[in-house]
Amino acid sequence: MTINVTIWNEFRHEKSNPAVTELYPNGIHQAIGEGITGDVSVRYAVLDDAEHGLTEEVLNSTDVLLWWGHMAHGDVQDHIVERVYNRVLQGMGLIVLHSGHFSKIFKKLMGTSCDLKWREAGEKERLWVVNPGHPIAQGIGEYIELAQEEMYGEHFDIPQPDELVFTSWFEGGEVFRSGCCYTRGSGKIFYFRPGHETYPTYYNTEVRKVISNAIQWAKPVGREYPSYGHVPVALEPIKGNK
Amino acid sequence: MTINVTIWNEFRHEKSNPAVTELYPNGIHQAIGEGITGDVSVRYAVLDDAEHGLTEEVLNSTDVLLWWGHMAHGDVQDHIVERVYNRVLQGMGLIVLHSGHFSKIFKKLMGTSCDLKWREAGEKERLWVVNPGHPIAQGIGEYIELAQEEMYGEHFDIPQPDELVFTSWFEGGEVFRSGCCYTRGSGKIFYFRPGHETYPTYYNTEVRKVISNAIQWAKPVGREYPSYGHVPVALEPIKGNK
Amino acid sequence: MTINVTIWNEFRHEKSNPAVTELYPNGIHQAIGEGITGDVSVRYAVLDDAEHGLTEEVLNSTDVLLWWGHMAHGDVQDHIVERVYNRVLQGMGLIVLHSGHFSKIFKKLMGTSCDLKWREAGEKERLWVVNPGHPIAQGIGEYIELAQEEMYGEHFDIPQPDELVFTSWFEGGEVFRSGCCYTRGSGKIFYFRPGHETYPTYYNTEVRKVISNAIQWAKPVGREYPSYGHVPVALEPIKGNK
Amino acid sequence: MTINVTIWNEFRHEKSNPAVTELYPNGIHQAIGEGITGDVSVRYAVLDDAEHGLTEEVLNSTDVLLWWGHMAHGDVQDHIVERVYNRVLQGMGLIVLHSGHFSKIFKKLMGTSCDLKWREAGEKERLWVVNPGHPIAQGIGEYIELAQEEMYGEHFDIPQPDELVFTSWFEGGEVFRSGCCYTRGSGKIFYFRPGHETYPTYYNTEVRKVISNAIQWAKPVGREYPSYGHVPVALEPIKGNK
Repeated sequence: MTINVTIWNEFRHEKSNPAVTELYPNGIHQAIGEGITGDVSVRYAVLDDAEHGLTEEVLNSTDVLLWWGHMAHGDVQDHIVERVYNRVLQGMGLIVLHSGHFSKIFKKLMGTSCDLKWREAGEKERLWVVNPGHPIAQGIGEYIELAQEEMYGEHFDIPQPDELVFTSWFEGGEVFRSGCCYTRGSGKIFYFRPGHETYPTYYNTEVRKVISNAIQWAKPVGREYPSYGHVPVALEPIKGNK
Repeated sequence: MTINVTIWNEFRHEKSNPAVTELYPNGIHQAIGEGITGDVSVRYAVLDDAEHGLTEEVLNSTDVLLWWGHMAHGDVQDHIVERVYNRVLQGMGLIVLHSGHFSKIFKKLMGTSCDLKWREAGEKERLWVVNPGHPIAQGIGEYIELAQEEMYGEHFDIPQPDELVFTSWFEGGEVFRSGCCYTRGSGKIFYFRPGHETYPTYYNTEVRKVISNAIQWAKPVGREYPSYGHVPVALEPIKGNK
Repeated sequence: MTINVTIWNEFRHEKSNPAVTELYPNGIHQAIGEGITGDVSVRYAVLDDAEHGLTEEVLNSTDVLLWWGHMAHGDVQDHIVERVYNRVLQGMGLIVLHSGHFSKIFKKLMGTSCDLKWREAGEKERLWVVNPGHPIAQGIGEYIELAQEEMYGEHFDIPQPDELVFTSWFEGGEVFRSGCCYTRGSGKIFYFRPGHETYPTYYNTEVRKVISNAIQWAKPVGREYPSYGHVPVALEPIKGNK
Repeated sequence: MTINVTIWNEFRHEKSNPAVTELYPNGIHQAIGEGITGDVSVRYAVLDDAEHGLTEEVLNSTDVLLWWGHMAHGDVQDHIVERVYNRVLQGMGLIVLHSGHFSKIFKKLMGTSCDLKWREAGEKERLWVVNPGHPIAQGIGEYIELAQEEMYGEHFDIPQPDELVFTSWFEGGEVFRSGCCYTRGSGKIFYFRPGHETYPTYYNTEVRKVISNAIQWAKPVGREYPSYGHVPVALEPIKGNK
């Protein structure tokens, strides 16, 4: 069954930084989209679209949403964040990439600051698989090596992941929980660390494989949203004590 | 070492519902406070105090905060919620009681709707210990039985607890994860289900024991808040751009 | 892609207890097998087969193994248990049903006693979904109701599940964590509580749906078993002893 | 309240390898014991003692057992392993150190192979705190740095820890989950990675602090072992369907 994927990108660095323009001429979102394999239908949405491209209609027909943002987290309108949030709780998958750790939507879903250490020094990153039986690690060897990336270091202020899939080693001496799975409401969330805008990370075959795997993992199970609220009639007789 | 506990109560039902006034003449907070054992120093704060009784000074000298609210969640000011939230991330323990599941602070820390099913029918609740080695279950037998309580039923829309200590059986046919542990930032959070305002739950010896245990468990470890942000100098040499 | 399923059954009650013979004339394994939907190929193996039907050849071509046992756990040979265990660590899925909680293979994989309370009183069981977004709960409503089942009660001595999908309510007053997910090595394990031999549980449509879902969830990701052991050559230069 | 600690050491390397003898003249166990702070009473037990020093009497009066073994895991008798295992399930804390990952007791409690990669190259290890609010990390800065240690690398074949406290960075390019918390039965288990016999790791102040913290965390809660088995009489009336 075809999975409907929407890739959301801030799409600002690509317009303001020539190095990024050269690397991702059609935007980071397109590079990500071109790398996705499997039975998926891909759409794009960017910050400067009307409603950031995330209308009710778009979200209601999205199975899995990918999110890349960095320099303009504050420009994302709160009511759109609320809309995405509600869709996740109802079952839409969400894949948050790299600097998206500081997006409003990720912080709202995590309930923590999502803060971390960082350094831009073009250093080597090695993402070790710590859960080899996890579907997101399917087809990945013992680790993914990226010659140059931005460093993100612990402590990463997130809730303990429901499942931890990758842990990164950095040349400069830090480690980072770099592939983290969560369930919130009926929705599945995967945070995947690499993807700084000045490196060709989203052209990397294994990074693309992980993203494709994560889409399969995060797709909704297609059940109705559970009911809540007042249930005055009990399923079983109640004696009471009055 | 003495643990500084602040018990926060909405303190509205006690003023408007004669049945509650009779049951908790000095407020639910006082009944809770009187039941706490161990080396603790207890203060009280209520919604109608200035700044809801949760000034910077009070919070900075609080090790563990207890929270009971129900009918007036919306009256709690957002900047006070933010203040409590930041203190939790920095290490203050938080114990959320009963209808506090819908408080702003709990929903913000969980990142989910915290919705559930409910019914007021004076039915029997039996809280089964599912983690007998957990310090919060210390001194509790196989279960706690409450002759009459409000029912809360699954699905309870919370993140999967880091540790689940109690699961409730209800006479009317439902179950509920009724003792849930979380860590958020450096702070520990315990959600404990029972405590509807029209029942004498906070006079129950075992309920009081659980609350006393939870305070010990949730106390801060007393370390500095971890550092975050830019760390331009690496711990190890980086070969850098070739 | 077709999933190769092997259903293992002790197949003793069906031969010795006329009530069970009548209910499951071809054995519990066949009733389970007939209820599985999806692209699967089903084989059967029973205790009294040579090597309990679990030869190297059978196990090496099994993606997901189901296990029902009760009165003859002790008759399962240790070297066969070891064989199954190694296959699970290498990625084979394992679904342990009902009284299989006390099987050698489940206890070995859990590392605990797997003990519990039990009662045969033909009482009502209601399995509540506590993780509505989980693929194993796909297509299931808020709960599954079974008119008559054996009771299993907490404390159930298992490691905290990686994911908890169902929690049971019993008419007689107990609760039970009745749908539990684990990963061990590269293999996924699902424990599913209902299925006492004297009740028609394995003809129940929703129980069959859960088992079919669990097979999809537990299928191996098809990666090589990770390497271990001595790696004398480092990936990065080491300065070594000063 | 005084915690009764027993430190178990294989005590073979110290007798056969002069470098180890020089480093730990009274055995690794004594170096560990001398570093423990807090209200504890410390005893020692070694492989070559009668019953490996782990008589029923010793175990029944032990609150927390520490375990260091490496070259002689196979010499530990199975019935003593069983005895330790039962005590852990009943609530005794267990702290497994370094090469104890391959001990019979740890593998039995984990239910996995506990395999890993390793290299003896005298390389730098940096143990990062990934859970700063955890009591085991109390008083530890952002990381512990050890100038020279043996490398242990992922994939480490363990169940996902209930709580992960440390993750190690190694100079040679690997990472490792180096501080892992579990509950099994009523007992708490902490695995702590560093401590190769040829390095002065157990004289390190921060390593000693972690071990002291872990003892406090792992102490039993002092409750009776939960009951299991047949409970023919229900807590609530059962209608039955006969």
